[in-house]
Amino acid sequence: MSINSFGHLLRLTTWGESHGAAIGAVIDGCPPRLALDEAWIQRFLDLRRPGLSKNVSPRQEPDRVRILSGVFEGRTTGTPIALIIDNVDARSADYPTGAPYRPGHADYAYDMKYGFRDPRGGGRASARETAMRVAGGAIARLVIPEVAIAARVVEIGGESASGEWQAMLDHARTAGDSLGAVVECVASGVPAGWGAPVYAKLDADLAAACMGINAVKGVEIGDGFGAARLKGSESADAMRTGAQFESNHSGGIAGGISTGQPIVVRVAFKPTSSIRIPVPSIDAAGNEVEAVTRGRHDPCVGIRGAPVVEAMVALVLADHKLLHRGQCG
Amino acid sequence: MSINSFGHLLRLTTWGESHGAAIGAVIDGCPPRLALDEAWIQRFLDLRRPGLSKNVSPRQEPDRVRILSGVFEGRTTGTPIALIIDNVDARSADYPTGAPYRPGHADYAYDMKYGFRDPRGGGRASARETAMRVAGGAIARLVIPEVAIAARVVEIGGESASGEWQAMLDHARTAGDSLGAVVECVASGVPAGWGAPVYAKLDADLAAACMGINAVKGVEIGDGFGAARLKGSESADAMRTGAQFESNHSGGIAGGISTGQPIVVRVAFKPTSSIRIPVPSIDAAGNEVEAVTRGRHDPCVGIRGAPVVEAMVALVLADHKLLHRGQCG
Amino acid sequence: MSINSFGHLLRLTTWGESHGAAIGAVIDGCPPRLALDEAWIQRFLDLRRPGLSKNVSPRQEPDRVRILSGVFEGRTTGTPIALIIDNVDARSADYPTGAPYRPGHADYAYDMKYGFRDPRGGGRASARETAMRVAGGAIARLVIPEVAIAARVVEIGGESASGEWQAMLDHARTAGDSLGAVVECVASGVPAGWGAPVYAKLDADLAAACMGINAVKGVEIGDGFGAARLKGSESADAMRTGAQFESNHSGGIAGGISTGQPIVVRVAFKPTSSIRIPVPSIDAAGNEVEAVTRGRHDPCVGIRGAPVVEAMVALVLADHKLLHRGQCG
Amino acid sequence: MSINSFGHLLRLTTWGESHGAAIGAVIDGCPPRLALDEAWIQRFLDLRRPGLSKNVSPRQEPDRVRILSGVFEGRTTGTPIALIIDNVDARSADYPTGAPYRPGHADYAYDMKYGFRDPRGGGRASARETAMRVAGGAIARLVIPEVAIAARVVEIGGESASGEWQAMLDHARTAGDSLGAVVECVASGVPAGWGAPVYAKLDADLAAACMGINAVKGVEIGDGFGAARLKGSESADAMRTGAQFESNHSGGIAGGISTGQPIVVRVAFKPTSSIRIPVPSIDAAGNEVEAVTRGRHDPCVGIRGAPVVEAMVALVLADHKLLHRGQCG
Repeated sequence: MSINSFGHLLRLTTWGESHGAAIGAVIDGCPPRLALDEAWIQRFLDLRRPGLSKNVSPRQEPDRVRILSGVFEGRTTGTPIALIIDNVDARSADYPTGAPYRPGHADYAYDMKYGFRDPRGGGRASARETAMRVAGGAIARLVIPEVAIAARVVEIGGESASGEWQAMLDHARTAGDSLGAVVECVASGVPAGWGAPVYAKLDADLAAACMGINAVKGVEIGDGFGAARLKGSESADAMRTGAQFESNHSGGIAGGISTGQPIVVRVAFKPTSSIRIPVPSIDAAGNEVEAVTRGRHDPCVGIRGAPVVEAMVALVLADHKLLHRGQCG
Repeated sequence: MSINSFGHLLRLTTWGESHGAAIGAVIDGCPPRLALDEAWIQRFLDLRRPGLSKNVSPRQEPDRVRILSGVFEGRTTGTPIALIIDNVDARSADYPTGAPYRPGHADYAYDMKYGFRDPRGGGRASARETAMRVAGGAIARLVIPEVAIAARVVEIGGESASGEWQAMLDHARTAGDSLGAVVECVASGVPAGWGAPVYAKLDADLAAACMGINAVKGVEIGDGFGAARLKGSESADAMRTGAQFESNHSGGIAGGISTGQPIVVRVAFKPTSSIRIPVPSIDAAGNEVEAVTRGRHDPCVGIRGAPVVEAMVALVLADHKLLHRGQCG
Repeated sequence: MSINSFGHLLRLTTWGESHGAAIGAVIDGCPPRLALDEAWIQRFLDLRRPGLSKNVSPRQEPDRVRILSGVFEGRTTGTPIALIIDNVDARSADYPTGAPYRPGHADYAYDMKYGFRDPRGGGRASARETAMRVAGGAIARLVIPEVAIAARVVEIGGESASGEWQAMLDHARTAGDSLGAVVECVASGVPAGWGAPVYAKLDADLAAACMGINAVKGVEIGDGFGAARLKGSESADAMRTGAQFESNHSGGIAGGISTGQPIVVRVAFKPTSSIRIPVPSIDAAGNEVEAVTRGRHDPCVGIRGAPVVEAMVALVLADHKLLHRGQCG
Repeated sequence: MSINSFGHLLRLTTWGESHGAAIGAVIDGCPPRLALDEAWIQRFLDLRRPGLSKNVSPRQEPDRVRILSGVFEGRTTGTPIALIIDNVDARSADYPTGAPYRPGHADYAYDMKYGFRDPRGGGRASARETAMRVAGGAIARLVIPEVAIAARVVEIGGESASGEWQAMLDHARTAGDSLGAVVECVASGVPAGWGAPVYAKLDADLAAACMGINAVKGVEIGDGFGAARLKGSESADAMRTGAQFESNHSGGIAGGISTGQPIVVRVAFKPTSSIRIPVPSIDAAGNEVEAVTRGRHDPCVGIRGAPVVEAMVALVLADHKLLHRGQCG
């Protein structure tokens, strides 16, 4: 089962609520004898940390990670690596119990599922959980030193010219509004042969990994939706001697298995649902109210989404490296 | 593990190659006492069957399914349901062993993974496997009688006006070329509360289910990539008394959990890679050759993809109904 | 989930009822390029086949296995291997629908679980399912050529002197009664290092594998229950240079991981519940009746249990070889 | 995968080494709205705590558990419950790095697997990990309020007369030796119908759960190995009106499914391997040495094993209740 775990052989299990005592993760199945310390993980956490610029949530979380197990004398032991980050700057008062369901959030669905609701910052559904994905991804990178993974924002609010973004972000933040974004991630150095032909397809696992990130509404591999507009003669990746491809429409994956080309994933983030502009909603008693989110939030959640996408891609690739080695030696 | 299995509690395992003796499936975890016979499954298989029109592969496969276990006196028993379809019209001669890697196919990646290649029609990587997804989906529908699932092609070759499609298809078929397509699937009647907040998110499982279909390169939930171009004030689904939503930008899922609105999934199919137009490629010895696919193929694989998308959506929803019932009673 | 599947990376899924059309299995995760044909599997099936002597069920099942997928030109492809055995000599008339619950069988529990009962020879709960475990085990052996696995009956009816067994079996069969047995299985050649320290312990997986065989009520590793009667100074396996152990109280497993010594498993089979001697029971309506089993059954199910134990041990060891290779390279 | 996780729907993942900073667990899949606080868990932890009598390890660990997530206002939320216990009284100096492999421990096997060894008290292989099983079991009990679970020592050193035990324990402790034990666990109130007929058999899962406890070498259900010495006519559990059974040879499980009778499990613990009596061994360099364990250990680990057996039985039963509810409603 994978309710709060991700991966086949390399497994990330996370726990913790946005406004609880701490958040944490257990990384299981990691190969032994890899050099690992807290500084390595922290480096990646710092990239998604809130409070660093006016473009992201002003919540001041040092997000200081501690390794509680699975590392001995600076090396992984092969046993579970437990990570913890204390929640420091949680202002639950921002979230009164009787607050309206916030449109676009998991509030209502969560209440329908579990029969009650943790009003404190979205509880388990908060994007704060993604800090642990980033931490897990940092460890996954150690498993695949042959692979380089880089994600970057390629669109904000539908605009792909990056010079326009800051003005758009300033405007949205001032208006109490938010903007969507598209993140593109490229993984280079993946050898041909990782993945599987039917249900643990590399692209299917990548899709689950990225669609499961908070606020994500779309995932593409290679040409993605653009491929649906092409002809077969236009989208074929011709091959030449030395396993050289003349194009990469496939995004590095064919039939669920890596081809040796760079793996290209594009991820659509919706605009943050937490906005100061009132939206009609109801409260738990069914009364019609206006929902206004006063918590500290990101004007464009996609910006901090890039390191999370990198982390999820790293987890999937590391997992498939181990799976491939397990089955095919 | 899920190399050739899909699902958590309701599990579909498939087997078989395109040109082997037969293909089959095992559906495990199905609730007992559901009325089921072969005619019910056949009805859905007939919708994806090749040979029915000039727009799909001319391969003549009756695709006659037989139930070998798990049903007693017309009712499911709660034990594994085994299904089998004999391969009747397999022409392996279309696929000589020394054939070049077909660009866009799994041929090359498969060879890199397993150290050899089953040249007969793509072997396990053939879209023929999707017949068993459709069969599994037919059974999944019995688990969720409250849900109606309907998928349809909404774009072919980038054209969304259906009146243009036949001419485009005729042109592509005559030219030995192929076209991409977009399929949209809507599931109505899903109650609020199915799914999970982090890694078994309903949308993440749907993304894996659909991205894992042959030729799929993109998946969207609700507004999908369009959401990345909106502001938060535009994409919020306002709520009114009676849990009525005023819009469905979210596509029926918030925070990984169903909201009670229709679930909307859009899936991008690339054009069939099997085309008669030559594409530069190499053979297994590394020689540069021209790849021409002579087998019988679909000019637009997305057409037959619609019932497969329906099936995968049905499998995910049925699985999450059981998961929700297991955890929350 | 593992309702009808077994294993982590090498996964056996079985299907089929004792008196249905056929029984079958899917073996997933098998490494590619292993030499495999039906004769190899048949050799092991023949060892558990009924009808071969007066000491086992007289049911005449040729148990002829066919490979339907996953093998190409005599080699495994790395994709699912589907196996099927047609049921030939099924006499469902032996099992009228209104028959009493047979004490010691799954009849009553099965009815309580699923809300009805497949009266034909125990349906899914029949030991006939174990043919597919034996078939799966035959394939697992190919994954671990370095390991030799041999199981034998070491006790029948509490008697460990094999010279006494035939008379005891003759007496039980004539009286319409049955006898229990103990089977011991030794796996030699397992290198040190397979297994895991906590929940995928090699011994825990072996215990599940063997306790899940029909009629098994106890499993021991190494000294087993005998270890509970020893002192620590008596049960320690002293080591000498060259990783030589001076004894094998541990049965080749310490802390869930193989030590390099032979792995020793002992398995207790209860006497067959299907006996001709009447036993007080009830029918589905709750009426008190006498249950007499008229089907064809084994006077000592442990005899045919030995090849099943071998198969389950092979499956566990092959699985752990792949797991170890996946994690530790 | 389940390297460090246990269970299907209700999943326990544990982490931590004996002499690391802390040990912990994540319980995933727990139903929402169950009353839970730290005191409830602590009550069970205190039963397995060391240092309480001369019959158990003198290590002074308060084993104070903290709940870090998954509980809000005294109720489970349905999201992961994270537990942590700080390691207080760890004396790593008892375990120098160059120490010989301790016969009967996982030291050697662990080194062969992972390529190095955590010498501090057995690291991950230490029985300290079982504290988290007990904590998980405490939560599992909340899921099955209808079930009463009680385990007790029934044999020490082969002696079943409890009046003799103290003298035997005193003698062993004084001699620096240790004794084995048998623990019997009875679960009453389990309704008929939990379990599954083939691979998630209730007895198979119980066997894995118990065999995976440190120092366990044997598991029996019902008559266990005694059943192998009976005739079928002696071991059948006759039934009378009202689903009353006249005996319980089966131990409450038939064909992998509960019968409604008490479930009876017997577990054999070997004597603690950590003894002060020297045993011939080797060190990591292969030199022949005498191993003497100076750490603080239990003269009879079975005594503290009883609450661990209870916990594992609770986890299995709660998991199967959820599985049954998921599939059968």
